Amino acid sequence: MAPKLKQVIVIRKDLKMRRGKEVAQGAHASMKVVLENLENPLVQEWLDEAFTKVCVSVDSEEELFSIYDEAKTSGIIAAIITDSGLTEFAGVPTVTCAAIGPDWSDKIDLVTGHLKLR
Amino acid sequence: MAPKLKQVIVIRKDLKMRRGKEVAQGAHASMKVVLENLENPLVQEWLDEAFTKVCVSVDSEEELFSIYDEAKTSGIIAAIITDSGLTEFAGVPTVTCAAIGPDWSDKIDLVTGHLKLR
Repeated sequence: MAPKLKQVIVIRKDLKMRRGKEVAQGAHASMKVVLENLENPLVQEWLDEAFTKVCVSVDSEEELFSIYDEAKTSGIIAAIITDSGLTEFAGVPTVTCAAIGPDWSDKIDLVTGHLKLR
Repeated sequence: MAPKLKQVIVIRKDLKMRRGKEVAQGAHASMKVVLENLENPLVQEWLDEAFTKVCVSVDSEEELFSIYDEAKTSGIIAAIITDSGLTEFAGVPTVTCAAIGPDWSDKIDLVTGHLKLR
């Protein structure tokens, strides 16, 4: 059975991050949305459930921003992460990933449903 | 400069999870510690800083529990994640990862400093 509420973590595949770097960046994004929206009833309901998280990928910064913007336009809470570049990316601040939701699966699928599972 | 406060996400490498599955599980662990300890001054200070996260690996469930137990014994906040197995792991609930801290880097390094960067 598909989860009713979920959060989708969207990772930039083109950056070819180390696996552990992706885990850390994805956790940043996931946490940022939640901490910014702790009073949101959907967030509370999601946390009370199985707080389902799904991870997908995009191929560019442009595509990541496009997904993020579409989510916000659709009224879905979302966060985008810019890594400082202090330890990777040759010192250049780099947009690495985003988290979309939590929100209703059907609503999120309209924005991220076409993206490849990571 | 090494961060003063950090959180270490410890992933079971032996499970050979998909990359995206690791991202989702790591985000679960990271978030669980934070939500369970929102009133902890160290957590607040970490969130106000760069909320540094580092991801390392272990080779077994036994090793993961050993790290987790050592962290708790050392007075470091920590969380361990058991995946329901509903979509992976052939339906068997499976312990996938843990998050250690946030806490002072020096203190966490005594527990996780020997583990391989993921």
